[in-house]
Amino acid sequence: MPYHTFINTLQTLLGPTHVLTDDHDTLPLCLDWRGRYQGKPLAIAYPGTRQEVAEVIALCAAHQVAVVPMGGNTSTCGAATPDDSRQQLVIGLKRLNRLIAIDPDNNTMTVEAGMTLLEAQQLAARHQRLFPLSLASEGSCQIGGNLSTNAGGLAVLRYGTMRELALGIEVVLPDGQCLSALEGLRKNTTGLDLKQWFIGAEGQLGLITAATLKLFPLPSARATALVGVASPEIAIQWLGALKQRFGDRLTTYELMTQVCMELVARYQTADVPFMAPCTVLLELSDSGDNETLTDQLVEWLGERQDMLDGVIAMSESQRQSLWALREIMSETQRLQGHSIKHDIAVPSSAIPSFLTQAGARLEAAFPGCCIMAFGHAGDGNLHYNIAYTRPDNQQLFDDEHAVNQIVYDTVYALGGTLAAEHGIGQLKIHWLERYKDPLQLKLMRGLKQQLDPHNLMNPGKWLS
Amino acid sequence: MPYHTFINTLQTLLGPTHVLTDDHDTLPLCLDWRGRYQGKPLAIAYPGTRQEVAEVIALCAAHQVAVVPMGGNTSTCGAATPDDSRQQLVIGLKRLNRLIAIDPDNNTMTVEAGMTLLEAQQLAARHQRLFPLSLASEGSCQIGGNLSTNAGGLAVLRYGTMRELALGIEVVLPDGQCLSALEGLRKNTTGLDLKQWFIGAEGQLGLITAATLKLFPLPSARATALVGVASPEIAIQWLGALKQRFGDRLTTYELMTQVCMELVARYQTADVPFMAPCTVLLELSDSGDNETLTDQLVEWLGERQDMLDGVIAMSESQRQSLWALREIMSETQRLQGHSIKHDIAVPSSAIPSFLTQAGARLEAAFPGCCIMAFGHAGDGNLHYNIAYTRPDNQQLFDDEHAVNQIVYDTVYALGGTLAAEHGIGQLKIHWLERYKDPLQLKLMRGLKQQLDPHNLMNPGKWLS
Repeated sequence: MPYHTFINTLQTLLGPTHVLTDDHDTLPLCLDWRGRYQGKPLAIAYPGTRQEVAEVIALCAAHQVAVVPMGGNTSTCGAATPDDSRQQLVIGLKRLNRLIAIDPDNNTMTVEAGMTLLEAQQLAARHQRLFPLSLASEGSCQIGGNLSTNAGGLAVLRYGTMRELALGIEVVLPDGQCLSALEGLRKNTTGLDLKQWFIGAEGQLGLITAATLKLFPLPSARATALVGVASPEIAIQWLGALKQRFGDRLTTYELMTQVCMELVARYQTADVPFMAPCTVLLELSDSGDNETLTDQLVEWLGERQDMLDGVIAMSESQRQSLWALREIMSETQRLQGHSIKHDIAVPSSAIPSFLTQAGARLEAAFPGCCIMAFGHAGDGNLHYNIAYTRPDNQQLFDDEHAVNQIVYDTVYALGGTLAAEHGIGQLKIHWLERYKDPLQLKLMRGLKQQLDPHNLMNPGKWLS
Repeated sequence: MPYHTFINTLQTLLGPTHVLTDDHDTLPLCLDWRGRYQGKPLAIAYPGTRQEVAEVIALCAAHQVAVVPMGGNTSTCGAATPDDSRQQLVIGLKRLNRLIAIDPDNNTMTVEAGMTLLEAQQLAARHQRLFPLSLASEGSCQIGGNLSTNAGGLAVLRYGTMRELALGIEVVLPDGQCLSALEGLRKNTTGLDLKQWFIGAEGQLGLITAATLKLFPLPSARATALVGVASPEIAIQWLGALKQRFGDRLTTYELMTQVCMELVARYQTADVPFMAPCTVLLELSDSGDNETLTDQLVEWLGERQDMLDGVIAMSESQRQSLWALREIMSETQRLQGHSIKHDIAVPSSAIPSFLTQAGARLEAAFPGCCIMAFGHAGDGNLHYNIAYTRPDNQQLFDDEHAVNQIVYDTVYALGGTLAAEHGIGQLKIHWLERYKDPLQLKLMRGLKQQLDPHNLMNPGKWLS
């Protein structure tokens, strides 16, 4: 089918305003979040309903046109970016942003995949419920993308990743057929759990159009503290002791090394209350009131002989300012200059060994390199970024492969993973091939072959 | 390969005492839990290591011998029972019952698939950790079977089903290759989550030999109450209110209709403290001490205008006696005589409608039928059993198909499922075919074809 006929058919299907073809419109939208990949699409289509998605994908299947699903375009690995061949159609989900149903008594809601995470959180809150997924890009990222990358973030310690928060999904398959399984059931053993195939598949097996999500009671109490301890070992001992004392009330446990806080003090105006070898932001949430919960935390912290320093939020504004110290880490990293970023996880018990071993190996190989390690210690997930304090940043990127290899070899020796919550996309295909069991890759690609024999769904990513 | 050569090869592999061939030994072991299916196997083999499992399965693949994995043989659907052709080799897992590793600081343990659920619970407890899966057959059922049926039970409300409790698994594929993914990671986005394919697959895609499981802090406090309310509607309102007040402390919420308690009073010696239209057994668990938690529950119950009657356990022995009333339900059903059993789930908000609608339709079709409904209301999962008070039980089984159809039509009209935690096995294949989306069945069978093209893994069940 000639280009113009295909575009005309699309415009007839969706309405002319919902199909972008001009480079002036499309190219800015096809630059990935980190600016590493610039896609050049055939066009960008914005279907308004599940049915329109199915019709567009069926049209593409009929004419062997590749499809790249795009949510909020916040992938850090180029997972939603087309190649530059002008042969791939980007399907944007922003118009599929409606609430389909909410059942507070069943603690579930069903939403379209193009709803932003923030909208989903606010929607749940309006019904006195919590949708707990929370991450930096929540204002832009969409539910479909959260599912496709099995997103994690700040509350996984208590509530799990997106996989654990999804009860049902609706997917348009590469041939345009629609798989609809939006049940809001906690238990269902009627066959294989097909939604699991599509969660974390980065849009390579089908396009997710809707999901039924778990909701939780809206916590009425929070207690938040920033504490300093002498080492990551002690921080991990605290994690266990906090779980023992507070159980599921422990919602967030974020670790920041001293380098991180020093860089904040240097590049940001934010007030850093103290310096310690290891700083932890921890938060409890519960029913009841803030005072009771805060008193319990104060009492527990009071018994810690090994706390070097600490600040407990006594008001919501103090809580916000403590959180701000964690939330400005990525921007601080940017202000410092280029860095080689990693999104690794190890068993949380192995975090101290990882920091010691990887740090020593990197310092030996790249004397004077600056390591910024921070993140979700409660889940064993750290963002582990390496920069040079010297100005020659080009040198840094020449060393990127060697740096990654040191980091990932250390991670895998400790039973960890090179991708904890950001996925693989285009950026980490080579590393997935290097570290993943070939048998596992073979099985994954067998399923891809079964569902998408012509490789039309998000080609050029890791399943291709 | 002639029978004797095959058996000799097996005996050489495993040692003669680990291969049973005599009907006197094998037939009693191949009668299913409910006595509905009597398998006649080629033999029963008991490998002692993962490597031996792989060798036995490779041998079977080479000679096109079908394999039936058997754990504790507690399936209620005949999922682990071979056919009567004497052509299928049963592989028993009881010798694979070892602890591989435990990491209390990471809250994980890795065990072989033949360990009983009770052993796994006790093992975790010896390290001051909780493995929360809990169900009636826990003394016999095995971890591999729990994974293969995605087992549920009494604590799903708080901790989730077996799927949510598994971080990694090890599987021998139908061709004898071993897929080992025993990482103890909370976050991992390196490709598709292959363990999800095998959880709930009832041994039809491979044989699970080990798993890495989530552990939790061992609760130090419990508060348990048996309460009576006027209707299931009120019981479901209470469920929401309890979640709002106690959050994740609410661990168990079991509903029993008045018929259930009347049958207990009639057939059992257990003391039934009160009669009410709807009785609920609820339990909170937490850190801290029993008294504090019990006081909180007493206070909350004291504010309920709509509680008809209630008993709160003030000692462990009182707690046990309240639990006994729930645990003797199945035996009570048996004492009453034959019954047609269902393991259904609906959104918990739909439980009252389900009980009203199904009850009315059954009474209209089968006047005087006796409906015993009890179970995990917190998850929307009820065991819904129909008996006749008349002596003509043969008549009951003549009506079984019609009874099931009324129950399942009502369930599906309410967005529910015909199999919540017991699976499909052989018993419910027909009903799965009737109610499951044909596209979903096609996709499931496509994966079966990919992994097991010769249909050698647990054939004759629902994926065949």
